[in-house]
Amino acid sequence: MRIYGDKRSGNCYKLQLLLSLLGKTCEWIDVDILNGETRSQWFLDKSPNGKIPILELDDGRVLSESNAIMHYLAFNTPLMPSSPFSHAKLLQWQFFEQYSHEPYIAVARYINVYLGLPDERRDEFESKQAGGYRALEVMEQQLKQSPFLLGDTLSLADISLYAYTHVAHEGGFDLSAYPAIRNWLGLVREQKGFIPMQAVS
Amino acid sequence: MRIYGDKRSGNCYKLQLLLSLLGKTCEWIDVDILNGETRSQWFLDKSPNGKIPILELDDGRVLSESNAIMHYLAFNTPLMPSSPFSHAKLLQWQFFEQYSHEPYIAVARYINVYLGLPDERRDEFESKQAGGYRALEVMEQQLKQSPFLLGDTLSLADISLYAYTHVAHEGGFDLSAYPAIRNWLGLVREQKGFIPMQAVS
Repeated sequence: MRIYGDKRSGNCYKLQLLLSLLGKTCEWIDVDILNGETRSQWFLDKSPNGKIPILELDDGRVLSESNAIMHYLAFNTPLMPSSPFSHAKLLQWQFFEQYSHEPYIAVARYINVYLGLPDERRDEFESKQAGGYRALEVMEQQLKQSPFLLGDTLSLADISLYAYTHVAHEGGFDLSAYPAIRNWLGLVREQKGFIPMQAVS
Repeated sequence: MRIYGDKRSGNCYKLQLLLSLLGKTCEWIDVDILNGETRSQWFLDKSPNGKIPILELDDGRVLSESNAIMHYLAFNTPLMPSSPFSHAKLLQWQFFEQYSHEPYIAVARYINVYLGLPDERRDEFESKQAGGYRALEVMEQQLKQSPFLLGDTLSLADISLYAYTHVAHEGGFDLSAYPAIRNWLGLVREQKGFIPMQAVS
């Protein structure tokens, strides 16, 4: 079993952090997004959507989408809630992450940190701010009510949302008005097995 | 248990179609997106992200995100694969739908059908075409290999992707180059319990 990814990507970091929290390891093959490797034929043959991370099983079957891979890796572990409602609530937060959080916060960070905020992308960068703050507001409301997104204990939902929230400042987002989020970021960092994300060099 | 939604929305139609295929019913409360009802305080009190559909349980707990609600409604039914890999593969397709399909195909349709393709949104409409065709290509590749997205039988993945793919032409997408998708659309329509989506009047 091996993961193809870029360790500076939040979507890939979700898997690294999850594995580390579970005390598991997995072979890792670096793929360079900026070099266009995810659009190369060898990668598209594995995963036609051309996005990292992907997980390749020993029998050759491939899974894509970071949040889906997390469910496979965390099957039957305490990080995966077992009741039907809690399981659906976990998915709610993960779909929220992909639709209402990542497209704003991660893309603003990408334009700023990976691309160096070039003039021709500045309007797009600015256009991501309102949506990103809306997503942070939704998280803040929940985290005012419970220390973790699903309640009193860490779950996959927290790992999914931690990935880009903890580097939101690199996308231009100021977390000073979100004390519950900042408290939660600290709680995640205190977990046994926590590892930080690799910095963009 | 009740659903708040708009029957002309593909994300809401997923739940209607799923319930009908399962032979179940659920109270339905219409919410008008264009009238701003999802941004009204009574709706935001139920679901701070302000998007339909939502599912409200009899005890007041609320789930949002169409694909997450589907998992709750289909728990322990044949539409939900049971092996860890198939379950993750189902999620892969649903995250693909929310990140790589809906933001192009559904948004192009929204601009065209709901808003009447106003001049000031025409550039945005055009910008959605390439991404939408990329998503259709990924689906076509899978559906050339198996009649349904997960293999030989219908699953939640097909319902999630059917919702906006079957009205992709309303977003300006031409399906004539995608015979496997067209075959699959027909297979979904033939399922016992199938119901069509309400047309935008």
